[in-house]
Amino acid sequence: MANTLRVGMIGYRFMGKAHSNAWRQAPHFFPLKANVELHTICGRDAANVEAARKQFGWQNASTDWRAVVNSPDIDIIDINTPNDSHAEIAIAAAKAGKHILCEKPLALNVKQCDEMVAAVKKAKVVNMVCHNYRRIPAIAQAKKMIEEGTLGEIYHYHARYAQDWIVNPDFPLVWRLQKGVSGSGTHGDINAHIIDLGRYLVGEFKEVCGLMHTFIKERPLMDAGGKGQGLAANSGKKMGKVTVDDTALFIGRFKNGAVANLEATRFALGRKNHIEIEINGSKGSLHFDFEDMNRLKFFDNTNPADRMGFRDILVTQGGGVHPYVGQWWPPGHIIGYEHTFVHTIADFINACVEGKSVQPTFEDGLKNERVLEAVEESAKKRQWVKV
Amino acid sequence: MANTLRVGMIGYRFMGKAHSNAWRQAPHFFPLKANVELHTICGRDAANVEAARKQFGWQNASTDWRAVVNSPDIDIIDINTPNDSHAEIAIAAAKAGKHILCEKPLALNVKQCDEMVAAVKKAKVVNMVCHNYRRIPAIAQAKKMIEEGTLGEIYHYHARYAQDWIVNPDFPLVWRLQKGVSGSGTHGDINAHIIDLGRYLVGEFKEVCGLMHTFIKERPLMDAGGKGQGLAANSGKKMGKVTVDDTALFIGRFKNGAVANLEATRFALGRKNHIEIEINGSKGSLHFDFEDMNRLKFFDNTNPADRMGFRDILVTQGGGVHPYVGQWWPPGHIIGYEHTFVHTIADFINACVEGKSVQPTFEDGLKNERVLEAVEESAKKRQWVKV
Amino acid sequence: MANTLRVGMIGYRFMGKAHSNAWRQAPHFFPLKANVELHTICGRDAANVEAARKQFGWQNASTDWRAVVNSPDIDIIDINTPNDSHAEIAIAAAKAGKHILCEKPLALNVKQCDEMVAAVKKAKVVNMVCHNYRRIPAIAQAKKMIEEGTLGEIYHYHARYAQDWIVNPDFPLVWRLQKGVSGSGTHGDINAHIIDLGRYLVGEFKEVCGLMHTFIKERPLMDAGGKGQGLAANSGKKMGKVTVDDTALFIGRFKNGAVANLEATRFALGRKNHIEIEINGSKGSLHFDFEDMNRLKFFDNTNPADRMGFRDILVTQGGGVHPYVGQWWPPGHIIGYEHTFVHTIADFINACVEGKSVQPTFEDGLKNERVLEAVEESAKKRQWVKV
Amino acid sequence: MANTLRVGMIGYRFMGKAHSNAWRQAPHFFPLKANVELHTICGRDAANVEAARKQFGWQNASTDWRAVVNSPDIDIIDINTPNDSHAEIAIAAAKAGKHILCEKPLALNVKQCDEMVAAVKKAKVVNMVCHNYRRIPAIAQAKKMIEEGTLGEIYHYHARYAQDWIVNPDFPLVWRLQKGVSGSGTHGDINAHIIDLGRYLVGEFKEVCGLMHTFIKERPLMDAGGKGQGLAANSGKKMGKVTVDDTALFIGRFKNGAVANLEATRFALGRKNHIEIEINGSKGSLHFDFEDMNRLKFFDNTNPADRMGFRDILVTQGGGVHPYVGQWWPPGHIIGYEHTFVHTIADFINACVEGKSVQPTFEDGLKNERVLEAVEESAKKRQWVKV
Repeated sequence: MANTLRVGMIGYRFMGKAHSNAWRQAPHFFPLKANVELHTICGRDAANVEAARKQFGWQNASTDWRAVVNSPDIDIIDINTPNDSHAEIAIAAAKAGKHILCEKPLALNVKQCDEMVAAVKKAKVVNMVCHNYRRIPAIAQAKKMIEEGTLGEIYHYHARYAQDWIVNPDFPLVWRLQKGVSGSGTHGDINAHIIDLGRYLVGEFKEVCGLMHTFIKERPLMDAGGKGQGLAANSGKKMGKVTVDDTALFIGRFKNGAVANLEATRFALGRKNHIEIEINGSKGSLHFDFEDMNRLKFFDNTNPADRMGFRDILVTQGGGVHPYVGQWWPPGHIIGYEHTFVHTIADFINACVEGKSVQPTFEDGLKNERVLEAVEESAKKRQWVKV
Repeated sequence: MANTLRVGMIGYRFMGKAHSNAWRQAPHFFPLKANVELHTICGRDAANVEAARKQFGWQNASTDWRAVVNSPDIDIIDINTPNDSHAEIAIAAAKAGKHILCEKPLALNVKQCDEMVAAVKKAKVVNMVCHNYRRIPAIAQAKKMIEEGTLGEIYHYHARYAQDWIVNPDFPLVWRLQKGVSGSGTHGDINAHIIDLGRYLVGEFKEVCGLMHTFIKERPLMDAGGKGQGLAANSGKKMGKVTVDDTALFIGRFKNGAVANLEATRFALGRKNHIEIEINGSKGSLHFDFEDMNRLKFFDNTNPADRMGFRDILVTQGGGVHPYVGQWWPPGHIIGYEHTFVHTIADFINACVEGKSVQPTFEDGLKNERVLEAVEESAKKRQWVKV
Repeated sequence: MANTLRVGMIGYRFMGKAHSNAWRQAPHFFPLKANVELHTICGRDAANVEAARKQFGWQNASTDWRAVVNSPDIDIIDINTPNDSHAEIAIAAAKAGKHILCEKPLALNVKQCDEMVAAVKKAKVVNMVCHNYRRIPAIAQAKKMIEEGTLGEIYHYHARYAQDWIVNPDFPLVWRLQKGVSGSGTHGDINAHIIDLGRYLVGEFKEVCGLMHTFIKERPLMDAGGKGQGLAANSGKKMGKVTVDDTALFIGRFKNGAVANLEATRFALGRKNHIEIEINGSKGSLHFDFEDMNRLKFFDNTNPADRMGFRDILVTQGGGVHPYVGQWWPPGHIIGYEHTFVHTIADFINACVEGKSVQPTFEDGLKNERVLEAVEESAKKRQWVKV
Repeated sequence: MANTLRVGMIGYRFMGKAHSNAWRQAPHFFPLKANVELHTICGRDAANVEAARKQFGWQNASTDWRAVVNSPDIDIIDINTPNDSHAEIAIAAAKAGKHILCEKPLALNVKQCDEMVAAVKKAKVVNMVCHNYRRIPAIAQAKKMIEEGTLGEIYHYHARYAQDWIVNPDFPLVWRLQKGVSGSGTHGDINAHIIDLGRYLVGEFKEVCGLMHTFIKERPLMDAGGKGQGLAANSGKKMGKVTVDDTALFIGRFKNGAVANLEATRFALGRKNHIEIEINGSKGSLHFDFEDMNRLKFFDNTNPADRMGFRDILVTQGGGVHPYVGQWWPPGHIIGYEHTFVHTIADFINACVEGKSVQPTFEDGLKNERVLEAVEESAKKRQWVKV
């Protein structure tokens, strides 16, 4: 292990917390090809970023992302800001020759994504979009099984990402509900995840037809003094217009002939972070639910007729049996949400050492955005759209 | 209990078996306002229908449905034939003044349904389309809760009816796979059920956009000497074209603003008769799975914050607590598929005595067909269609 | 099918209802070697038994069980009375040369059971104790798998039968709570079932050590005019002493070395008729829950290491794949509680024609009682007892 | 936050890895009253302990536990060694005035535990036995609900801790299977956990009667050169005698009248770390399964009769709603096994600052050991034993 990689992280809220943890934890659990330094954390509010620095374990704090991006002391830029600034930061980082990890969605639209892909290609830097759910052990196991042909030809990809955190009409107009900042609502935030998993597990989308809907059209603006985001936000008294979708769903076809049904919603009471996926093929089926993310259900049509059934695989076996999870604890001792970031960042660190990107790259982020835009277009035109 | 109702049943295969059982069992478990006589069973093949008569407990067998329909000894006609003969038989029965129970889908198309509705209205006979799943105790309980406002405003109706009985490409071209006889594939057969449950539980559909697909386009013709249907059918060597859909899915909107996502498939390995329904409202959610049909899951957003969760209601409480089920066994002693027909026929018998139809009437069958046709049209035109 | 078997049924309450249904239904669903006549139903209260006769579909009603037992018009005696009269009726029936189906527990104690076994052996009549749960398709499937060696050597039998119908202290002192009539509480009523399943699936018990406890020691006597039993009973104002156990649990060893843990309780709120069984062997495990009785969970240790898991077998496949259930409905269309009696009685009818008893015989009822008594003795002596 | 606490950790294998992680992570997620320094890690093998130092993030490594315990640079001793050395180390640490966290079981027997309790009392040091499962959020939530009276009077505590890691007879004789080092097998290792949870959630045990059994009596000795422990151990060719129990189960009574049924086994194929607990009271029931440790099932008997059911509480709500978990991620983003140590150590750190022990103390470890010994005695004497 020759060298040390020094990380500059832009953005310090929810994703910043998750990424910081992953940078800290990866070296303790995974065999890495380099040391890692949590060099600089960066954000707009000096007091907040300093508090985050102490809390999350970074060496330095900064309020000037351009300085961080261009610093000779930094090898990797990790982008966790709201979606509208991804492109600008990433392009600058590429120009500065840094390896880049960028939160999803890659950017606000295909045009931005195209520019980002061009920039990283030109600069030949290692690049990755943080679709962390690909490295849930159960999902990585599903990928392996599908690649081995365990499911045969794929017929159906049925996925639903359901949450309930804005059902209350008094919940305020946070940035995720403002199109200018977030680009879209459920669509870019959570549909993006199940689109990515569809692309990862089944293949490329061919055509789509979607519906986007806003159930609650006005919400209280955030309290002026309020700093909270997400669930902790405080409501003020003035009302503002919700400019993004509360739900986005679409039907579609993959290029390989499989049929797609995807739905994202923030209006499903009782569903907290419910990503339910079912894939049906000619030889078997898989079923996954993120709220039980250590499990993968598998129906094997080659079992004897009297003992077929969905098998409840607890994806916690070590010794190389199940992906990633053997680095943690013995079988049956489950892991959680944050571990998906540790797996992602461990692979990314090694990719930086090797100088060769691993999936999902910015190219994947671009392809994801193309599907997102095709769905939006179909919803507007009320007809099918080719991706 | 003054009188006796004499039943003539046309068709004697799968549905004939289920209906016969219901006619026999209803009087032993439900308080009926009339006696019931299993008077005549009718089908095309004399030997088969006589065997069915003995097996299912009917007094007489006939191969002449017109004679049965017009017999003065018959009060009720129960239609269980393939879909292409529903209209002709029902219209004749209405003309003959018989009360009519007709299997779903009501007919092959809206035109036929319209004529059937006109016929029963003109004849003023009691009429019912056998959407038996409405009388699953858990579904009847769901209906009660929704009507009481327990869920508040409805946002989502997400339903999937998945089976796997034709995944094997050697499975032969039975009548259900021939458009001329069945009208459609999964669409009329099983999508019809979840469309009906959507109409029952949420409201009328406003517009839809769908996709219909046939994964396996050719199948062996049935063995010439083969009598089997469904899973027991034997394959011959010649191939024939599959003229119906293997899967049909659509997104849509209800008139009350709720968003719909429905999917029917016969290509989901491991799903035998999987009807999964989730309904999300502003105050709570419901979840149902037919393979666990004695259960209803309910999320109540008014519970204390630290003890919210989907409640697994075992819908088996008697004493009037849960619908229908108290007539059977003590709590925790589950009932099965056939009981839904007993409940349906018990209510139908009483409706005949009262001279007043109960839901779902032929009118419901017609409305169901309108949705089915709108989806088919949208799939052809590749755009949204108003119902 | 040469002959007709004429049944006389003694007792007409809960079990009478379930058995009547089974006698009626068996001929419609199973290939029987004889016709069956529901000849006479018998009970102590003339008005009640006449009402039951009409409701349950019997030809004749009687209040004189001795007359029924000795009638030349009767071939089979089916005993559904409270436990204290089983022995007397069964012995008389054996003497009269009738085949006998007797509800469990076979009798109040080992002495009575011994006499009953002796009587049926001497009379050479077909005899069966109605442990209907043996013929739940999932249990019959489990038996088949264990006999084939699928589980290897058995290490653990862990079973719990939990109900909650008497948690309310105002629930009255019905006959099941009076030792003189019932013999015991949970022990003979429901522990008897899981002891029987242990004997059926694992083997004979060698030694046991148990605990029996009564949580609520006094209850209101039943309303004088009240006819209700079970859940429908009405409470009066006077109090009486509960003389049976509210819970009975024991640890033990089977002769083949397996370890046993059984628990029966009527004090587990939320558990309606929860029979949870887990069997662990050297090659695999099985898990069953009666409230989902159409399912059997199976862990197969010979699966590839990365795809092991409890398989959720929906035991509804026809065509001879799963036991019994193919006579009913297509895969995924579940059956319920009452079907276990139909299966039992179908096998019993054929056994009567063959003149050869099938399991579980009175001998099984006797062995079951020996285990029950050993547990009671161990609970009194506070030490282990050999069976 | 005035001071810094410096930790010396003795033992560096499985528990050492888990504790190291917790010492590192606690400051990043929980508001602590002191800084923490991972000062020294200590073990017998110099090379291994140095490797562990680097991997786990400790400042210094040592092979001399007495030096660590007596070092003036150390404030806290964390004991993770095999069970036979707990007492000696803890007593020395107490004498040196260190606060002590000790892995469970506290020691090999009651005598040792008594001495340890005496030592920490005399030294007035903060002491805790690491029963980390008490701080699973779902268990802490259960405790809160029981204390509030949500379950009413408790009737049943039914618990099973099942694993399968030694079913294979070729698995070698690791230290956990040698009585001299481990004290016992499943009994002290995993029964200890569910005994502790029973004491925590229900109350003190009054009397017990148990069974301990060894299914596989001889196993290969470990490969001489082998370092592996647990699942990674290598087998040699010589055989040795298994001197501990493969399963330990017992029935019992709590002082408050509740009935107990506990079972621990390493011979339940398919159960990896399955801790299943059900508690039934007069007003409700709770159910927990460690393999789904983010969930708690709750049956509330005060719900309306038609909508009662076990509620599946996803214990991931922040904002103070659910214990501990709000420090991590948003609702529905689950946590895992290691977090229970972080919660434990966060509370322990604050207790050290306050100078006041929090549960579970060494006293709890002693009481736990008394139950363990009573069960062992009852198994030997084949009769009930008072705790």
